[in-house]
Amino acid sequence: MKKLINDPNQVVTEMLEGIVSAYPESMKRVEGTTCIVRKDAPVKDKVALVSGGGSGHEPAHAGFVGQGMLDAAVAGEVFTSPTPDQVLEGIKAVDGGEGVLLVIKNYTGDVMNFEMAAELAEAEGINVEKVVVNDDVAVEDSSFTTGRRGVAGTVFVHKLAGAKAEAGGSLLEVKEVAEKVIANVRSMGVALSPCIMPTSGEPGFELAEDEVEMGVGIHGEPGIEKKKLVTANEIAKELTEKVLPELELDRSVEVAVMVNGMGATPEMELYVVNRKIQAILSEKGVQVHETFIGEYMTSLEMAGCSLTVLKLDDELKELLDSRSKAPAFRK
Amino acid sequence: MKKLINDPNQVVTEMLEGIVSAYPESMKRVEGTTCIVRKDAPVKDKVALVSGGGSGHEPAHAGFVGQGMLDAAVAGEVFTSPTPDQVLEGIKAVDGGEGVLLVIKNYTGDVMNFEMAAELAEAEGINVEKVVVNDDVAVEDSSFTTGRRGVAGTVFVHKLAGAKAEAGGSLLEVKEVAEKVIANVRSMGVALSPCIMPTSGEPGFELAEDEVEMGVGIHGEPGIEKKKLVTANEIAKELTEKVLPELELDRSVEVAVMVNGMGATPEMELYVVNRKIQAILSEKGVQVHETFIGEYMTSLEMAGCSLTVLKLDDELKELLDSRSKAPAFRK
Repeated sequence: MKKLINDPNQVVTEMLEGIVSAYPESMKRVEGTTCIVRKDAPVKDKVALVSGGGSGHEPAHAGFVGQGMLDAAVAGEVFTSPTPDQVLEGIKAVDGGEGVLLVIKNYTGDVMNFEMAAELAEAEGINVEKVVVNDDVAVEDSSFTTGRRGVAGTVFVHKLAGAKAEAGGSLLEVKEVAEKVIANVRSMGVALSPCIMPTSGEPGFELAEDEVEMGVGIHGEPGIEKKKLVTANEIAKELTEKVLPELELDRSVEVAVMVNGMGATPEMELYVVNRKIQAILSEKGVQVHETFIGEYMTSLEMAGCSLTVLKLDDELKELLDSRSKAPAFRK
Repeated sequence: MKKLINDPNQVVTEMLEGIVSAYPESMKRVEGTTCIVRKDAPVKDKVALVSGGGSGHEPAHAGFVGQGMLDAAVAGEVFTSPTPDQVLEGIKAVDGGEGVLLVIKNYTGDVMNFEMAAELAEAEGINVEKVVVNDDVAVEDSSFTTGRRGVAGTVFVHKLAGAKAEAGGSLLEVKEVAEKVIANVRSMGVALSPCIMPTSGEPGFELAEDEVEMGVGIHGEPGIEKKKLVTANEIAKELTEKVLPELELDRSVEVAVMVNGMGATPEMELYVVNRKIQAILSEKGVQVHETFIGEYMTSLEMAGCSLTVLKLDDELKELLDSRSKAPAFRK
């Protein structure tokens, strides 16, 4: 195992210290916790957004903390949900009196722990709502999930619900935006190589030298099938053909597209994949409002990528376009 | 070799098509060339900035095309300089009447071909100036270079000289800013794994399972030494100790810091490395104005990172802070 780390058991703590020391103008750490919150938290009279989950998906979620997106990101150990206590610390640190929305990726551990945290916070008099993101169309039920998994589409939930909160939306209005995004966002991924767990130094799953895993999860969970590596065009086609029908797009509709690198994929290859995705969308007459290419929701050093498509209306477009000062999603 | 590509011989063309189709609001391609230029090029009465070089360093340089940064990026084949004719096409496409500044990374092929292009452009009546970036402190003279290599510090040259041009600076004023950045920016890199050339499918150099290459170049050129993998802290210390003395920093000074991923490094690890870099800077009393973490100047799927430090004064700070709409460097 070759990693730029010190002690595998300290990697999450040191990563959190490292991101906060990079962006002190956007964020701060709640001392003694794994929570990173907005520099100016709690923001009085604004609904607060809290997300998080296992580490290893950087820049998710701490990179999305900042004005216009998340108020708090709560980090668990690598690929492990944060505990209810940790999530509760995040909620308490950012509640500005207008309530808190939890944005949860659909993994059994996350859902359970965030829900428990919500109950604990309610017991302390904080108004909490929650949404569960399940944008991954690859499979129903998986290693760590009942139903569909939450993956890179979560970033759009952060952005658009965050914009609504920044604009002064009420807790229910912000939740409504989050639910609208969740209803209109779909993703699928592919892996070319596994990621290596820092603690064990072992790959999370096996792939032969000529194989890819279609529909892989962001923790290396099995997808639809292992198959021989094909061209970028064929992979773009397969991802697009799985994702688009879920959205019932017609020619009048606009979308946002995210081609997300899983960690070790050269940006050159993401552009090559995007080329075909855009060609397919164009053939179908789908209007692309904006495209995002880069690393948003990674799986340590997994090679591969995912496609996320968000169907927009005027409200969602305006929220997507608004200013964000989160370091990993500047607008 | 596992890559998300189609035909290795078409990878540059398809990559260019892929990036332009992602960001049509920022850039366009000059048909029949490897030049990507600002959407609104040529911008009348503005000095134009042209850069480029071999492909494989994405998002450099096309990702930095946009308002506030580059007017044109000219792409060569992977790790190969664009030809003088290709550079000339870029110059002609963006000249708005106030002249063109070429930003060249110090590699023998780039310097030769960009200089030849400058002469050809001058012969066509375009006023051209050039600067050569040589920020890599690792070694004097290398496989493809006389003197020091130009690496990630080039991105700061694009940003600050681009801002000066956007603000209406004359060709000589823009060149002066570029030279000031070059005089005040220093970098060094480390590789944990080699990159794989798309055409041959072979690694560009060899590293044992427990080795790193300190001072590696962005094409895998040899650095200072191959040595046993050490901790992130030790690597951060070594990079910082090589880079900082070159800048003669004192306690009154502010800097910008870039921790650049080489292609396959998990963002988690970049944060861990940054943690130690910031601690060292803080110990020395150096003020960090802004930190950039992510992929800016990559080497395909090389694992590793580089540190770039730019010494700032009030003028450079203002230029760094100004708005940029380049997709890979939004401000």
